Amino acid sequence: MEVKVLTISENILGANEEKARRNQDRLDEHGILTVNVMSSPGAGKTSLILQTIGKLKEKARIAVIEGDVASSLDANIIQKQGITVVQINTAGGCHLDANMLKKALDNLPLGDIDLLLIENVGNLICPAEFALGEHKRVMLLSLPEGDDKPYKYPLMFTEADVVLVNKIDLLPYLDFNIIAFNQAVTGLNPRVKIFQVSCKTGEGLEAWFSWLEDAIKQMKNRRSS
Amino acid sequence: MEVKVLTISENILGANEEKARRNQDRLDEHGILTVNVMSSPGAGKTSLILQTIGKLKEKARIAVIEGDVASSLDANIIQKQGITVVQINTAGGCHLDANMLKKALDNLPLGDIDLLLIENVGNLICPAEFALGEHKRVMLLSLPEGDDKPYKYPLMFTEADVVLVNKIDLLPYLDFNIIAFNQAVTGLNPRVKIFQVSCKTGEGLEAWFSWLEDAIKQMKNRRSS
Repeated sequence: MEVKVLTISENILGANEEKARRNQDRLDEHGILTVNVMSSPGAGKTSLILQTIGKLKEKARIAVIEGDVASSLDANIIQKQGITVVQINTAGGCHLDANMLKKALDNLPLGDIDLLLIENVGNLICPAEFALGEHKRVMLLSLPEGDDKPYKYPLMFTEADVVLVNKIDLLPYLDFNIIAFNQAVTGLNPRVKIFQVSCKTGEGLEAWFSWLEDAIKQMKNRRSS
Repeated sequence: MEVKVLTISENILGANEEKARRNQDRLDEHGILTVNVMSSPGAGKTSLILQTIGKLKEKARIAVIEGDVASSLDANIIQKQGITVVQINTAGGCHLDANMLKKALDNLPLGDIDLLLIENVGNLICPAEFALGEHKRVMLLSLPEGDDKPYKYPLMFTEADVVLVNKIDLLPYLDFNIIAFNQAVTGLNPRVKIFQVSCKTGEGLEAWFSWLEDAIKQMKNRRSS
């Protein structure tokens, strides 16, 4: 007895690419390194952004765009750090798109930003399909989600510049094969950087900070060259 | 300084309701209790289905529909239990819809099924917006996702008949306020049933099995009356 497999494709993508290119031109013009942070709900996007703010806010002028279906919970937490935040509520939409980023950029002081962190809607599928105009794509996969996720949600892993394997502090209590996971990810995406971190304890985050500082410097050099 | 909130709504819903009603008529005709199982990626949908099969397969004829963006990993695991499975691959789509369920039903022996478990695509947003024709909606929220999820993804919690709080075995290692979570869920959805479970250890699952057996009986009674 074989498993029946039905492949049912639906066109859920709009014409988003051109708007994303215009956003990137605008960000380039101001020398703003822009990072799109994506993951499942609760994998640790906000915790990563808070840790990053804590480490880099004396070195770079940071702004944040928060994407959520509903609520401003995360934006309020981030604003308490003295950081400029725009909250986008998608009212049911399962991802940010380039048009939403444009509206958010219209509400930010672009001349005063070195690093723009965009927290996408918690979803391992559609955010990977909709370019915003970002320079780097970062995804978090938290250990409790399981090591099989690259097979089930391949596009997100294929599109990422960095995969942060978060909640590494829970490893003793879970069945998660890190070697098999890393092999699956690099099989999909050989150029990806993988960092094992805990946004709760801070473990492993120095490698992420260092990668991000390099990317900010490259953006500045590119602009001045 | 106030947080700027932009509400950007996009119409991502098609005309799905009529097809869902036709599916439900067809399921009713055959007396098949149909349960739509939804959650974030990795929250435990497949584990719940496997536990449910293990408990109920001598009492009810069970079939499963597996929804995934890609892969047949879960369908293969379930088929090893001797259960009829149809895999739907959405090829990028972030939810199942009524049209997909129709095609799956066309591939199932409807006269030989008492309980149909549908594992939706791992996503806490869109699956709640697309009725399939199911009789019951069950969602899992796993502890590592955090207790703030009802505020960020309200529709899923509002639409559920049952919320299973899964991975309760990890409670000692996490900051998760169960009382606050339960209050948030019942605030959105006063009639919902909430069960705390571990699909890994089996803890708490008896209440879920009992609820499901009652629902199967009600379906049979409804049909014979």
